[in-house]
Amino acid sequence: MLHIEFLTDLGARVTVDFERPEQLLDIQRRYGRLGWTSGEVPAGGYSFPLDNEADFDWSLIGARKWTNPEGEEMVIHRGLSYRRRELEAVDSRKMKLPRAVKYSRGARPTDPEHLREKADGEIEYVTLAIFRGGKRQDRYAAPSTPATGPASTGTPAAARPAAAARPAPRPASPAAPAPESTPEEDMPF
Amino acid sequence: MLHIEFLTDLGARVTVDFERPEQLLDIQRRYGRLGWTSGEVPAGGYSFPLDNEADFDWSLIGARKWTNPEGEEMVIHRGLSYRRRELEAVDSRKMKLPRAVKYSRGARPTDPEHLREKADGEIEYVTLAIFRGGKRQDRYAAPSTPATGPASTGTPAAARPAAAARPAPRPASPAAPAPESTPEEDMPF
Amino acid sequence: MLHIEFLTDLGARVTVDFERPEQLLDIQRRYGRLGWTSGEVPAGGYSFPLDNEADFDWSLIGARKWTNPEGEEMVIHRGLSYRRRELEAVDSRKMKLPRAVKYSRGARPTDPEHLREKADGEIEYVTLAIFRGGKRQDRYAAPSTPATGPASTGTPAAARPAAAARPAPRPASPAAPAPESTPEEDMPF
Amino acid sequence: MLHIEFLTDLGARVTVDFERPEQLLDIQRRYGRLGWTSGEVPAGGYSFPLDNEADFDWSLIGARKWTNPEGEEMVIHRGLSYRRRELEAVDSRKMKLPRAVKYSRGARPTDPEHLREKADGEIEYVTLAIFRGGKRQDRYAAPSTPATGPASTGTPAAARPAAAARPAPRPASPAAPAPESTPEEDMPF
Amino acid sequence: MLHIEFLTDLGARVTVDFERPEQLLDIQRRYGRLGWTSGEVPAGGYSFPLDNEADFDWSLIGARKWTNPEGEEMVIHRGLSYRRRELEAVDSRKMKLPRAVKYSRGARPTDPEHLREKADGEIEYVTLAIFRGGKRQDRYAAPSTPATGPASTGTPAAARPAAAARPAPRPASPAAPAPESTPEEDMPF
Repeated sequence: MLHIEFLTDLGARVTVDFERPEQLLDIQRRYGRLGWTSGEVPAGGYSFPLDNEADFDWSLIGARKWTNPEGEEMVIHRGLSYRRRELEAVDSRKMKLPRAVKYSRGARPTDPEHLREKADGEIEYVTLAIFRGGKRQDRYAAPSTPATGPASTGTPAAARPAAAARPAPRPASPAAPAPESTPEEDMPF
Repeated sequence: MLHIEFLTDLGARVTVDFERPEQLLDIQRRYGRLGWTSGEVPAGGYSFPLDNEADFDWSLIGARKWTNPEGEEMVIHRGLSYRRRELEAVDSRKMKLPRAVKYSRGARPTDPEHLREKADGEIEYVTLAIFRGGKRQDRYAAPSTPATGPASTGTPAAARPAAAARPAPRPASPAAPAPESTPEEDMPF
Repeated sequence: MLHIEFLTDLGARVTVDFERPEQLLDIQRRYGRLGWTSGEVPAGGYSFPLDNEADFDWSLIGARKWTNPEGEEMVIHRGLSYRRRELEAVDSRKMKLPRAVKYSRGARPTDPEHLREKADGEIEYVTLAIFRGGKRQDRYAAPSTPATGPASTGTPAAARPAAAARPAPRPASPAAPAPESTPEEDMPF
Repeated sequence: MLHIEFLTDLGARVTVDFERPEQLLDIQRRYGRLGWTSGEVPAGGYSFPLDNEADFDWSLIGARKWTNPEGEEMVIHRGLSYRRRELEAVDSRKMKLPRAVKYSRGARPTDPEHLREKADGEIEYVTLAIFRGGKRQDRYAAPSTPATGPASTGTPAAARPAAAARPAPRPASPAAPAPESTPEEDMPF
Repeated sequence: MLHIEFLTDLGARVTVDFERPEQLLDIQRRYGRLGWTSGEVPAGGYSFPLDNEADFDWSLIGARKWTNPEGEEMVIHRGLSYRRRELEAVDSRKMKLPRAVKYSRGARPTDPEHLREKADGEIEYVTLAIFRGGKRQDRYAAPSTPATGPASTGTPAAARPAAAARPAPRPASPAAPAPESTPEEDMPF
């Protein structure tokens, strides 16, 4: 038997039992769709391969995609909105970094010190996830939905949208409840 | 099997087992009526839709409503009183925020730094919950009681008071014990 | 099934299972007599009704009464001694507080910042419990012992010594082991 | 059923189930011999009666005795060495303290602030345990071994070496593995 | 029954049940190969005997070896790279230390204060593990693989590569998934 500890959408500490290690990601998807999270966002944010960005299953970390009224792609996690930013590759004498996609928000006064990152000037921000380099992991992909094409016959767990084509924002599914509150916009930076 | 971790009204760490995910909110209501809480108040307070404010079931977070000797509506949570404040909508060039209702108290010397919010001047406060925007979630409503009308025949868990009409303060039920201590008044601000 | 997490008298983390919510206080009494505690002392101390002070069952929070060589009433909790102080009612224009009884000790260099309270001058202290206002809760009373009167025939859990008469210090029972060390006296303040 | 949480010698978080409260100290001895600890060292160190010092069973707290190359008596706990010091009784107008034995080490840069104690000058130290006053508790005694005398016939759990005679350092038993690393010497102070 | 708490490669808190204490290291190896860790890296890093360095099984702490594009030997732990450094023996009047091997990285702005160590100048670093002195523990050795020699017939748990010969970097096994992201290089120091 295994057990996973969640923080529910209401902030309660709830543990869920399950039978086999192989069920873990499905359990995380199922409860993550409700906004439940397990563990803390690591300092500097979750780190995933860049090739997982296009169809990343945000329910794995209790988050979900959202397009704000201005048409920007955001991700909501524990009631806060993170904005998508593309980072160019860096190739200087001091540092070599491949290009990346980062989801971050402006820091709030109540954020703990060790999560705040300094950007240019005085602005501080907090990163939810960064997608950079690495090798695609199919297990992180969102299950394909009927909307992605009539020919999809794979089981949800095995289905894999083509990574090259950026899928349209996934329509809200009946299983994915509306957010509990208007997500707070982060300040632009 | 699932398990929820509580801090009891006496501050003890107690875990309660339950069988199905659907039972979670009922479990939280049942023990919340005793003043038990699960998890921490999030930095900035719990966030709920504005349309849930009128009949919000405070037992879900281990709190309860209370009218103080001056006739003000308060909420008691872990022995501390929070005052209800209505926040007007903000519509400036810098910020757009819909109107909200906030339950907050003056900060105490022993409050941790990351929960203190700065208001005008030198006053600091701590927020228990903010109700703003969003879409009403029936599952957060207090079960209707016989006092709300003779026609109520639903089971407590399913019953839903009309959201439009602000219900009279719920009379103390036999299941809801008196607070363990005189709630400390927060300083006005 | 329920589970309560304790810190034993030796500082070990031990969880005890039990069957029904109604057993909780008895479990806390049973292990509290050994000096086991569950959860942390809340910032500012535990808060109880004043009418519970006379016959409060200190084993509920893993503490016990003790009369020091100078004949002062003390309470020992996790190896530290707290002194009983009576606080007069405050009735000024700024603050109204009913009279109270407080158990506190001088702060030690190793106490965390959020537990230290400032008194007059430079002295800092830490509060274990404050008894003020509220309505007596019989469930917090120490079970009556033969020493409190020959007529007592109630079961320990239901028995209630008269709250008006301050009972003599309870004699050490065979189930209540001697403290593991000489309690350190707190500095007077 | 009861459960005790350990930090293993490798730093892993492992919980062990057991049946009866009476088994607790034996469980702590068994795993403590492997260097497993439960809970944190309290601020200011563990506190035990002075009469328990001579034959204290260090495995109860996951520590073990060790004589360094200079012939000094040390105690190793979580890879760090603590040196034995005898403290004279204090009998001034300001303070009265009976004589004590203390196991402490010099503070390391990575020790958390609340564990550091100031000594004379600028030196800071950290205490593992202090033995002072109190009444001897047989349950803390190391089980006697054949080496302590041919007449010992008690069961290990009940056996009690004479407290008056300081026993020779207990030879490493087959069940007590060698330390995982050369213990770091603390600076003298 | 025993239970071990892990932080998964995705940062989730998952507990795994097992039957016997003897299974512990195998459980840690099995899940450690997936990048799961249990407990925190101790302040100052894990401490192991020097003779365990050559064939240390990094999966025991959820880490794995990796040779960077420049041909340097690194260890990856929770997405961060640590570089291997050999420390000469110190034999001054003030300090005597045998030679050691250390795996460390430059400190990041988000590292907590108590993990940062000061080196010469202003550079701070964080240590994952130090191998120094002590007596080899076979239980920490990586199971031998067919690649280490045709004569190996021991069971994986018992097998022990010769400690004298530094084995070639272990080829990625099918059970050891690729890292989730390009490991961030630490700054040289």
